[in-house]
Order: sequence, then C-alpha cells, then structure tokens
Amino acid sequence: MAATKTYLTGIQTSGEPHIGNYIGAIKPALAAASSYDTLYFLADYHSLNTVKDPQRLRANIRSVAATWLACGLDPERTILYRQSSVPEVFELTTILTTVTGKGLMNRAHAYKAARDRNEAAGVTDLDAGVNMGLFNYPILMAADILIMETDFVPVGRDQTQHIEYAADIAGSFNHVYGDRYSFPIPQGVYPEGEASILPGVDGRKMSKSYDNHIPLFLPENKLKKLVRRIPTDSTPVEDPKDPDTSVVFQLLTQFADADRVADTRKRLEAGGMGWGELKNELFEAINTEVAAKRERYDELMASETELDDILAAGAARARERARHVISRVRAAIGID
Amino acid sequence: MAATKTYLTGIQTSGEPHIGNYIGAIKPALAAASSYDTLYFLADYHSLNTVKDPQRLRANIRSVAATWLACGLDPERTILYRQSSVPEVFELTTILTTVTGKGLMNRAHAYKAARDRNEAAGVTDLDAGVNMGLFNYPILMAADILIMETDFVPVGRDQTQHIEYAADIAGSFNHVYGDRYSFPIPQGVYPEGEASILPGVDGRKMSKSYDNHIPLFLPENKLKKLVRRIPTDSTPVEDPKDPDTSVVFQLLTQFADADRVADTRKRLEAGGMGWGELKNELFEAINTEVAAKRERYDELMASETELDDILAAGAARARERARHVISRVRAAIGID
Repeated sequence: MAATKTYLTGIQTSGEPHIGNYIGAIKPALAAASSYDTLYFLADYHSLNTVKDPQRLRANIRSVAATWLACGLDPERTILYRQSSVPEVFELTTILTTVTGKGLMNRAHAYKAARDRNEAAGVTDLDAGVNMGLFNYPILMAADILIMETDFVPVGRDQTQHIEYAADIAGSFNHVYGDRYSFPIPQGVYPEGEASILPGVDGRKMSKSYDNHIPLFLPENKLKKLVRRIPTDSTPVEDPKDPDTSVVFQLLTQFADADRVADTRKRLEAGGMGWGELKNELFEAINTEVAAKRERYDELMASETELDDILAAGAARARERARHVISRVRAAIGID
Repeated sequence: MAATKTYLTGIQTSGEPHIGNYIGAIKPALAAASSYDTLYFLADYHSLNTVKDPQRLRANIRSVAATWLACGLDPERTILYRQSSVPEVFELTTILTTVTGKGLMNRAHAYKAARDRNEAAGVTDLDAGVNMGLFNYPILMAADILIMETDFVPVGRDQTQHIEYAADIAGSFNHVYGDRYSFPIPQGVYPEGEASILPGVDGRKMSKSYDNHIPLFLPENKLKKLVRRIPTDSTPVEDPKDPDTSVVFQLLTQFADADRVADTRKRLEAGGMGWGELKNELFEAINTEVAAKRERYDELMASETELDDILAAGAARARERARHVISRVRAAIGID
C-alpha cells in the first residue's frame, strides 16, 4: 500500500442523493477504489452552513452514507468517515489560517458568487448574508485534503479552484516550515467525457436547488410516476423525434446499455415511438440499475447499528492517519 | 463550586513577559482566583500568526507559563492549560463560523488597523499582508471563551470589542439552537483605576513593539543596569523635580508601598534628590517584588519535567470540561 497514491473524495451531506450525483460523482468515485488508496468523507460540518435543522442534518448524513455503501463502497477497502469524527481537521484549519492570505479568500468563487447575487439584487452591503463558514470554506477544505496527505482529489469542471487553493495553501505552509515537514501537493482528477453533466427533468443541470432532480432511491412506484411526469412536447406518437433535444433520451443514455440506446435512437428518429414508451424504457433502465442497491439502502437505513458501526470503524482508521500527520505538523511549527 | 462564576483569562505567548504585563495583567488576574472558578490559557495558536520560528514559539510558551506560575498562579486552584491542548476549541471555531456573519469580522478593530496601516503606507491592496488567522481571530477567541462556558473575561480598555464579539457570536448560536443548548453570554471585567497603563522607559505605554519594556525576570545586575539607563533630564540634584512628569517615579508608584511613594514625592519636590537616587529606589522596589518569583521562575525553567507536568494536568482538566460542552453543542446542531 505504501507506494499507492491517496485519493480523497468529499461527499456533500446537504440533502438526499439523486441520480445526477450517482452518475456524476458516486460511480466514478467508486471506480477509483480499485487503483488508489481511497478515503471518502462526509462533509457534515460543511453542511452546517446551510442546514440548521439538526433532525434534517442527522437524516441527511445517514442517508448519504447509506447511499454510498449501497452503491458498492467497500468499507474494508475504502476508509469512509465523517469529517466531524476527525477533530484534527479543525486544528489543522486553525494552523493553515496562519499561512493563508486573506486576499486568496476574497477571490474564492463561492464567496464572489454570493457577492454577485447581492449586487444583482440591489443589496448595498455585498457581504450581507455571507457567513464565515462560507468565507473560510476553502481553508477547511484544504485541511480535509492535507490532513490525509492526499495526492489526488476528483473535481468537477467548475470546481478546479478548490484544488488550486488547497495546493496553494499547502505550498505556503511548505514554504515556511518545509525543512521540518512538507505536505504533498494535491492534484485534481477531472471526470472523463461529459458523464457528470446530467440534465434534470426541466433540461437544466440536475440539482436539488432547481428542484428538477430524480432522487436515487425512490420507491419503485414513485420513481415510475416521477419519470412519467418529465415534461415532453406534444409531437404525436407516429412522428419522427430528435433524441438529442430530449431530456428523457439523454437520461436513458446514462442508464441503458449502448445497444439499447442505439436502437432507441433509431426508433425515435424513424417515428412510431411515443414519449410514453420512451419514459417506460427510462424507468426500466433506472430501476434495473438501482433496484438491488435500493434494497441494500433500505436495509442499512432500517438497521439500528450497522451504519453507525461502519462509520465508527472508518473514523478510527481516519483518525489514526490524521493523528500521525497532526503530530508531525505540530512538531514542525513548534506546538508540541 | 457549582454556583461560582467562571473567569477565563487568555495569555499571549508571543514574547517574554515584562513588568507592564505583570502589573497590568498578571497581578489582577491572579487576584481573581480567590473569588471565581478560574481558567487561564496560553493562546499558543494565536501566537502562530506572528511567530513562525518553532524554537522561539516553544521557548515563549514555556517562559510565559513559568512566569505565571512563579508569580503565584496556583495550578490546583486555577486550571492552567495551553489552547493547543484543547482541540475542542478548534471544532467549536468551525461550528461558530456557520453562525457568524462576515460583516462582523470586517468591522473588527485588529483587522481594520491592519488595513489602515496599509492605507497609510500607500499600499493599494488594503488586505496585503493580512492573514486569515488575524481575520478569524475574533471567532477563535469566542470559541476559547464559550468552550468553557465562561461568565467573565478580564479585558483592557482597548479590548472591549473582543468580548462584545464573543457575546454576539454566542447570541447568534443561541438564537438558532437555543431550545437545545445555550451558551452563557460572557461579560467583560474591566481593570480598576489606571494600574494597567504602565509607561515604558521612553514614557509611551510599555510594549515590546516599542522596545521600551523592562523584562520581568531579568537577572538582578541586568535589571539594575536597565533601570539606570532610563532617560531623565539634566535637572541638577539640588533642584526641585516634578514627580508627575517622571517615568521613573510613575514606575515606582506601582512597586513601592504608599508611604515610600509619598515620602519620595516630597523629597523630589523639595529638591536634593537626584535621578540616580530615584532610580536606585525603583530598582530596589522592583527587585524586592520580583526576587523570590525570579528564583522560582529559574527553577521551573531549569526543570525538565515540572512545567510540562503542570501543563499536562491542566490540559486534562480543561479537556474534560471542553468535551462535556462540545458533546452538548454537537447534539444541539445535529452532529452526533
């Protein structure tokens, strides 16, 4: 294992996973477990910036953890843990603030987007509604990454700044203390192709904030209903249809095998295949992919202890690594 | 002890203590131990913002801890601990960021002073040289205070904002989560009279940054030399002198007893007492106050283990309290 590179994935716990998360994040991340030393953590303290209802936060954390396990995360091979179970992350955050310039944070995309929203809304105080959790988030994220001496982090195309910041902050630390301790400089791993951009039922990117998402583990009958309600135009059954402008078809490409996709494309272009039939195909394809996983998910959610036990075991392994790193960092800075 | 109010003092570890710290901070803080449940912590992670040399940081921390103990801090009665020994502080900092508006930090005095210095120096980027440790410092300080469910914090006249911020942040947390857990709202305790404003050898406030300070535990011969070098005017011995414009006399009022001070005042005003004689009196007064303490200090600094053992015992007691609070906070926010 010594020569294997470390691959760390942060998992949002701000809501129930949907099929966009499954295709864009969960599947590719799980594929990485075969070639890396993998660590996946639930970013529960990050969620606290937006989720202030403790019941909902608790439920989200459980649901997200159960989802990843149900989708095939092997907790023996991959260390799965909650961010909040590794207090060394917060101590390292405090340490990293002392080598991080405020200017870097001023230029962070998430912060600038919040200011832009205020400006667009005519709010004079551009920092209105911005909390320090949002402003500090790049440092917390850098600590998440660096505490595990991470080599690789998967990032979406719109998240390249996150990993640049973590690399920058690691570089600042190494510049000051590098003769005593150096963090490896983490690198981003980018998704291949366009698999990560899944449309929601309204054609925009699938996102809970647009309320256009399809939850991953809906009960079968609800999944069927939701797929059937995806808006389509009123082209009659017998007319030819353009698959490339159809959200239903685009979703199908992610769940059906290549032959089935090619065959369906032909039938749509030829005419004679209605939207209803296409939706049935999509439902069947999604359901085939998720049925066994949904069963495992329901089992994990129903158990009183299984999920907690898995997370406790992951936390113990994660802390062992974190303790090792923080003690070296402490010695380097003179706090020991 | 249950009804006793909690009194928390943060101790800077950015340099060797001087007699201004002794009169302005150490003596009044130690006096509080008789009427409160007292906790004194060494703010070592705060020092990391300015001290990047690990050897110096280590030496400062030891020296400051030994100073307080030598001055009479009873580690059985008062919990003395290093900030870095209580990782719950950093976890609470992370939690508090999620209920703290960025606007509050924008208005913090220390941050604004740094911007003013840039502006005065003609630097265009007002955030130049400002690190995130400085910007976040009010939140870290709030966590230091709140993790111990502190009732009272001694603050200098120019530090009232610190305690206001801690109270503000506690209020924000309580507003969101108060039906499940509330922090006591901390209050500032202000020094009586003007004891805390001690002049340095050049007449300005005594401060290491002005390099006008008298280190507390100088060896006797060096203390004598330093006192003799305090600048005075060339009034001849036989002429009357104004005690109220003399730095040496002002320092004497803090170390000699009231009778001696009154007598010296009379002799200066009458003429016939030279600056040299006054300086001898000041040296004797300081030396009488510090001689036994200096001996104890040297003993603590020479011991391999005594200081570390005291700090380890204090850390254990502090963490026990911190763990209790953080577990209640975690339950309140839904991270448990």
